[in-house]
Amino acid sequence: MTEHTRVERDLMGEKEIPADAYYGIQTVRAKENFPITGYPPHVELIRAFGFVKKAAARANSHVGVLNKDIAGAIMNAAQEVIDGKLNDHFIVDSIQGGAGTSFNMNANEVIANRAIELLGGKKGEYIKVSPNTHVNMAQSTNDTFPTAIHIACLNLSQGLITALNELIETLKSKEQEFDNVIKMGRTHLQDAVPIRLGQEFGSYRRMLSRDLKRIQNSVDHLYEINMGATAVGTGLNAMPEYITKVTEYLAEDMNMPFHSAEDLVDATQNTDAYTQLSGAMKILAINMSKIANDLRLMSSGPRTGFNEINLPPRQAGSSIMPGKVNPVMCEVINQISFQVIGNDHTISLASEAGQLELNVMEPVLVFNLLQSFSILQNGISVFREYAVEGITANVERCREMVETSVGIITAINPHVGYETAARIAKEAITTNMSVREICIERGILTREELDKILDPKEMTKPGIAASELLFGE
Amino acid sequence: MTEHTRVERDLMGEKEIPADAYYGIQTVRAKENFPITGYPPHVELIRAFGFVKKAAARANSHVGVLNKDIAGAIMNAAQEVIDGKLNDHFIVDSIQGGAGTSFNMNANEVIANRAIELLGGKKGEYIKVSPNTHVNMAQSTNDTFPTAIHIACLNLSQGLITALNELIETLKSKEQEFDNVIKMGRTHLQDAVPIRLGQEFGSYRRMLSRDLKRIQNSVDHLYEINMGATAVGTGLNAMPEYITKVTEYLAEDMNMPFHSAEDLVDATQNTDAYTQLSGAMKILAINMSKIANDLRLMSSGPRTGFNEINLPPRQAGSSIMPGKVNPVMCEVINQISFQVIGNDHTISLASEAGQLELNVMEPVLVFNLLQSFSILQNGISVFREYAVEGITANVERCREMVETSVGIITAINPHVGYETAARIAKEAITTNMSVREICIERGILTREELDKILDPKEMTKPGIAASELLFGE
Amino acid sequence: MTEHTRVERDLMGEKEIPADAYYGIQTVRAKENFPITGYPPHVELIRAFGFVKKAAARANSHVGVLNKDIAGAIMNAAQEVIDGKLNDHFIVDSIQGGAGTSFNMNANEVIANRAIELLGGKKGEYIKVSPNTHVNMAQSTNDTFPTAIHIACLNLSQGLITALNELIETLKSKEQEFDNVIKMGRTHLQDAVPIRLGQEFGSYRRMLSRDLKRIQNSVDHLYEINMGATAVGTGLNAMPEYITKVTEYLAEDMNMPFHSAEDLVDATQNTDAYTQLSGAMKILAINMSKIANDLRLMSSGPRTGFNEINLPPRQAGSSIMPGKVNPVMCEVINQISFQVIGNDHTISLASEAGQLELNVMEPVLVFNLLQSFSILQNGISVFREYAVEGITANVERCREMVETSVGIITAINPHVGYETAARIAKEAITTNMSVREICIERGILTREELDKILDPKEMTKPGIAASELLFGE
Amino acid sequence: MTEHTRVERDLMGEKEIPADAYYGIQTVRAKENFPITGYPPHVELIRAFGFVKKAAARANSHVGVLNKDIAGAIMNAAQEVIDGKLNDHFIVDSIQGGAGTSFNMNANEVIANRAIELLGGKKGEYIKVSPNTHVNMAQSTNDTFPTAIHIACLNLSQGLITALNELIETLKSKEQEFDNVIKMGRTHLQDAVPIRLGQEFGSYRRMLSRDLKRIQNSVDHLYEINMGATAVGTGLNAMPEYITKVTEYLAEDMNMPFHSAEDLVDATQNTDAYTQLSGAMKILAINMSKIANDLRLMSSGPRTGFNEINLPPRQAGSSIMPGKVNPVMCEVINQISFQVIGNDHTISLASEAGQLELNVMEPVLVFNLLQSFSILQNGISVFREYAVEGITANVERCREMVETSVGIITAINPHVGYETAARIAKEAITTNMSVREICIERGILTREELDKILDPKEMTKPGIAASELLFGE
Repeated sequence: MTEHTRVERDLMGEKEIPADAYYGIQTVRAKENFPITGYPPHVELIRAFGFVKKAAARANSHVGVLNKDIAGAIMNAAQEVIDGKLNDHFIVDSIQGGAGTSFNMNANEVIANRAIELLGGKKGEYIKVSPNTHVNMAQSTNDTFPTAIHIACLNLSQGLITALNELIETLKSKEQEFDNVIKMGRTHLQDAVPIRLGQEFGSYRRMLSRDLKRIQNSVDHLYEINMGATAVGTGLNAMPEYITKVTEYLAEDMNMPFHSAEDLVDATQNTDAYTQLSGAMKILAINMSKIANDLRLMSSGPRTGFNEINLPPRQAGSSIMPGKVNPVMCEVINQISFQVIGNDHTISLASEAGQLELNVMEPVLVFNLLQSFSILQNGISVFREYAVEGITANVERCREMVETSVGIITAINPHVGYETAARIAKEAITTNMSVREICIERGILTREELDKILDPKEMTKPGIAASELLFGE
Repeated sequence: MTEHTRVERDLMGEKEIPADAYYGIQTVRAKENFPITGYPPHVELIRAFGFVKKAAARANSHVGVLNKDIAGAIMNAAQEVIDGKLNDHFIVDSIQGGAGTSFNMNANEVIANRAIELLGGKKGEYIKVSPNTHVNMAQSTNDTFPTAIHIACLNLSQGLITALNELIETLKSKEQEFDNVIKMGRTHLQDAVPIRLGQEFGSYRRMLSRDLKRIQNSVDHLYEINMGATAVGTGLNAMPEYITKVTEYLAEDMNMPFHSAEDLVDATQNTDAYTQLSGAMKILAINMSKIANDLRLMSSGPRTGFNEINLPPRQAGSSIMPGKVNPVMCEVINQISFQVIGNDHTISLASEAGQLELNVMEPVLVFNLLQSFSILQNGISVFREYAVEGITANVERCREMVETSVGIITAINPHVGYETAARIAKEAITTNMSVREICIERGILTREELDKILDPKEMTKPGIAASELLFGE
Repeated sequence: MTEHTRVERDLMGEKEIPADAYYGIQTVRAKENFPITGYPPHVELIRAFGFVKKAAARANSHVGVLNKDIAGAIMNAAQEVIDGKLNDHFIVDSIQGGAGTSFNMNANEVIANRAIELLGGKKGEYIKVSPNTHVNMAQSTNDTFPTAIHIACLNLSQGLITALNELIETLKSKEQEFDNVIKMGRTHLQDAVPIRLGQEFGSYRRMLSRDLKRIQNSVDHLYEINMGATAVGTGLNAMPEYITKVTEYLAEDMNMPFHSAEDLVDATQNTDAYTQLSGAMKILAINMSKIANDLRLMSSGPRTGFNEINLPPRQAGSSIMPGKVNPVMCEVINQISFQVIGNDHTISLASEAGQLELNVMEPVLVFNLLQSFSILQNGISVFREYAVEGITANVERCREMVETSVGIITAINPHVGYETAARIAKEAITTNMSVREICIERGILTREELDKILDPKEMTKPGIAASELLFGE
Repeated sequence: MTEHTRVERDLMGEKEIPADAYYGIQTVRAKENFPITGYPPHVELIRAFGFVKKAAARANSHVGVLNKDIAGAIMNAAQEVIDGKLNDHFIVDSIQGGAGTSFNMNANEVIANRAIELLGGKKGEYIKVSPNTHVNMAQSTNDTFPTAIHIACLNLSQGLITALNELIETLKSKEQEFDNVIKMGRTHLQDAVPIRLGQEFGSYRRMLSRDLKRIQNSVDHLYEINMGATAVGTGLNAMPEYITKVTEYLAEDMNMPFHSAEDLVDATQNTDAYTQLSGAMKILAINMSKIANDLRLMSSGPRTGFNEINLPPRQAGSSIMPGKVNPVMCEVINQISFQVIGNDHTISLASEAGQLELNVMEPVLVFNLLQSFSILQNGISVFREYAVEGITANVERCREMVETSVGIITAINPHVGYETAARIAKEAITTNMSVREICIERGILTREELDKILDPKEMTKPGIAASELLFGE
């Protein structure tokens, strides 16, 4: 021990702790054992532990097993954690062995030492406030950590849901803006039949609306928490009254409808709430990637690509090719999507590896889960603001491509049959003539009939154009 | 052309077709192009196409664009497809280019040729009934194939849901049967605190009940279909009245609440209904694998493992080790799970690869999706019948392990504090003495107090044992 | 027992077996236990078991523990398995519990019963030839099954390697054919700088050449086999001389350089040879998918896409859009790739699940591994024949796009600096003028200088065009 | 502009830059566009850019296109980047759109501004040293970024290879230490036949030795770099002499055998070198996870598990269960493995998404790739030091389990046939008698014969125990 350190002891020996550190020996052991990613816990996870420890102290005090002064000090210290004042003292690595015990120990130690100070003691005087006996009273990593994960996810989900909602709104306004922009639809990247650009944006909007619902549904499961489960979900050492109260206090503090899981054993060992959540985010990622891909295709060019739309330029696209502008906001969405899909893979592996009463792989699971929330929210926000909002359509080019296309032959189908239509199409492609010209030249349909049948806007709606010809009106 | 073949022609040339084949030239082209897996379409997919084509013919007839005799013949031929009578004529490979066009073409040709026969013609006389002009009237692969996928999934989902429900019931009965079997809980595979075997089965049951809900929720989206979308969802060539009717007829024929998608463009290009479905099955797979792993651990031994439970022997376990019996029904569940998880990966890749108006990767997507349904249902059924139902507990062994464990020290915690308890635990482990002995010898607690505190069943419920000692009653 | 069945018994009871079936009671149990995929073992796996059993019988006979007559009969029966004559009797499901024991049991029973017949007995008279005591002598599932997997993979790999080699050759000829086709290079799907179409095909060729090496390197590990390992790799019940001989005989029969693994324990429990193999195929799949994507982009259109190349038409592309032709041979490659990538996922999960002395998840692993081999080979063959060989270039269109592009400004960069060049580029884009026009109009470079600098072919080679201007020659 | 900022301009407008920042406007744009992960570039990637820029300036100077003073200043500035002095100025996010352009721009700007200072100018006076015209001369993101990735991977791979080598050595010493510890082998988690603990560690060692080779082989491909490829690999604006020199200088500076890729187009667009590398790490991860799982199983207990080995205690295992010690160093390996497997998934997705001349998804790819290197190295180091080195065996317990097991019946097999042996085994299991007792009681083998046949150590080696009995000596 020097003037800059203090010494703490446990059954395995002793360790020097920086004198100003609120964490203690178990945190230092964990720091030493797990120098893996270099990433500290997500700030929302730290905050969540603050909420958990505060509510637990209050409930223990209410039940009468925790001295009121100690409880008060713990609650105040926990509030500082909630306020982000002690973030620097949460130093254990995001990937760690031990099912989150080190996260919990770190929180217990930081809060204990801060509470000791608040009671006039010095850091390390655990006789005043013990990390395990007092701060962790009636708790285990196996209930506090899952509860903290739920809280962190709930907080992060709000940001994601807001960002997604805003994107949906922006898509809706684009859908309206582009409602009259007629362009060629493509299937297999090959010319198909006309569609309106607004319809395409509407399709993105609807898909994302379903994503929003999937995420909200998944998030709803998180209000069910397992405080009081203690070690294996049986509730050993947790008074029933405590269990009721701690859940109630958390609900009160966070203004969220928390309730106790119907079966704490189940809630302690199973991680399907997380795989469902990650799964919902994976589907969102897949869908966002599809949208980004479409926008990159439609904006390809400007001179050697589709060139149907323009994305707002955001930065010089090349260090060597002057004037180049790339669809960087779409590309970052693709990459975020790949990350989220990979994260889901990691989460699934971690979930499957649960054994018996506990899933000890939760640290890597929550690391990926929280990251997915953050990067999706961040990405969707900038994508909306810097890309989607500023999209413009090249209306003329879109219309030209419809007119020169062969795919419009499809509308002629009901009038001449598939086989005849196929012959016309083939001729159009080989001769480079237009479908209209061939039909007229061959006397298949009159100019007037063709005007009706090949009306571009009509082709983008249900119906057989000029169906009166079929029914002999 | 020989006596065993007929010749068919299209714009690309001609092909010989076996004389007795109901399929035609497009099917033969596809067969030649895609000799990939050797697996024909799933029978439920074939059946689903029967339903689709029947309803479409009826709707086209109702609308008045399809001659009633032709419509009648098509409907009868389609019914034969539904009845499985023409399965051998569906020969295109499960993995194929072309977004399912070859599935649809195969169905169109089989039904056309059978309809021609029913009208007294000969196979290949497409002037009577044309695969494209008549059987495919007002349809595209891009609406019939997704609709057929929905139907096939709905039919398969019923089997899976039944199997899962039965397993949940079996787990419930085991939960009750084992309610009094006290055993050691384990976290990190290390001795933790007591739990009841029934609680463990209850935990499995609850997890699977959530899986059931996830699957049902996902399945519900499938009632929304896109018949009438035609090529790109705009409904080109489909009369509004037809769209209403074809959906209504399908609902009637299958007795399922089908309804038309609110936006057919969206419903045609997006595949999130499938990724959600596959995602739900993936989570089920992860959870089933966890259960299988637990059962394998608990039944490990018999002499050198946990040996807490016995699985019913199902087959000789080794070709070299006589008398060996292995947990084969659990192992097959693990493997099915790995397959379903891998399938989900393929499905996700296929979903992300959709471009613009269509996802052309649907064939591989549906191949994996339908396989996941089938193997999960099959696996869960035999797992329940051959493994779970016959599980027995080694009650004595379970109890013994609780009594010799050190983990029960946890119940003493509230009475002496974590730090003292840790010292007792350490002594117990090093000296091989029991926790009880040390407590008595050291005068920490009396025999009577220990009887209360260490009551095994009490330890499996919420509460601080002998809490009156704490509150000084 | 009826006239159509015989009855067999084991320690668990008795079962009726179809009278003409060569398999026996253990196979029937497995069939009952595992009605999972409906897919029987891959024919190459069946064949491989024939080789294994034949060599083992010969080695056991050589060592003197197996009666020569019995050995001879077993070898003859095994040869029939090799010849595919008994395929119908291999009925256990591809996904099964028990680490492949049922595959091995099925092989043992089929060979025993056939050997019994060859010795004049009747099926089921195991006193003459016992599936376990004789056919499986000195063997375990845990050495025969991995060895059979190796053999099956080696056989399948030859087909894949051939197909890949042929594709590489075809790409090489296309590389030469298109060496002078100058087109616009694109990065980010945005116009970049000129490139030759031949260079693109050369890039595909080189990438696939590395894939070929990766696959060959991975396959080479398969010559190391673990015959003689028996149950856990320790070689219990296998005479050292037998181990030497069985390996030698296999090498002789298959004309392949098999050798015994240096450490049989390692070779019995670890599956990294398979994950490496699958990993190599996954990379091939990723690369094939990239090529397929590129070809689909370059052939997009014909009128509303890039339209730089033409793929040979292979089938009608749409049931509703007459004349449509889709890049179906590319699309099937994408789908095969997604399947192989998903299979790799399943294989990885199975590999990770190995425990202690054995990986019991090998059945699902090998199911996916062999499927990946088959579908890659099949897909690559038809892709080469039906797509790549017939690709043609739209030379004029390619050249036009180069000339109208702005990206060629890059070549002017060294002469005027990035900043000036950027201004010219911006002006070109906004005014729709050509880069050349602006340079001349602004007096930045002369027509002659521009002719040198903007020579399209020169731009596709290393060097600063007109560098003499820079160095003041 | 305030006293704390300067203003920079580009064609899109102007931005305020902190006055002391070495980065410039393009970096600020990128920072604004991509607020995604909050993680800056990996320090090894920053360092690698220093090497690249230094060698390029030297080569450009050698070729005569870059003024010697400017070149000197750039080289000195780049050296400061290599030395880590400017790390804080690399601020663009790890996940970003634009194929790494922002990384390259950030490097160009930092080096330009530092070079300007070294030449006596002020930050932002790009007329002196331009980020694009000078620092990026004859370069593109599309050659510098891949080259930097190669360099970063090579540097990181050395650490991983060292860590892996050390673990292999430690396993080797454990293999020797435990060579005589006879224990029960288990397959399917069920009692099988005896094995030596040393054999198990030997098996781990060999598996990891193959991983080492796979990683080394994959790393070897990285010496092939594409400097001089510029925008699309054609080498536009890069003099052949420059290409030779820049590669040579890099080799010299880093003392690594760099050479120019045979085909720069291929080397610019394809990413299989990375998927191969990631694939090799994935297999290592799978294998490490298997080892960790085995150690967790073997150390399970201490009283209710296998309890064959002891892992060194590293930290208190529970915040509620005193005295509990968990296999945390194994668990962190599992989690690292899951992360690496998930990363490989992301990398594969990114690799597959390459289009035409470039893979624009490289930023997310390299983020995951470098993370995999780091966490594997970190994890393997602490796993070796804190877990493997200190493993001890419970020799007595291991031996006892062998003696009471039924699995040893296998050695009796060759003497009595599988069928008889199976009956003995079954009797042993049901009666709880030992195999030895039954054999003697039934007069099947004598005590002396059994002593020979059931010698535990002999059972762990190839051979038929007491084979002389079989051959009638």
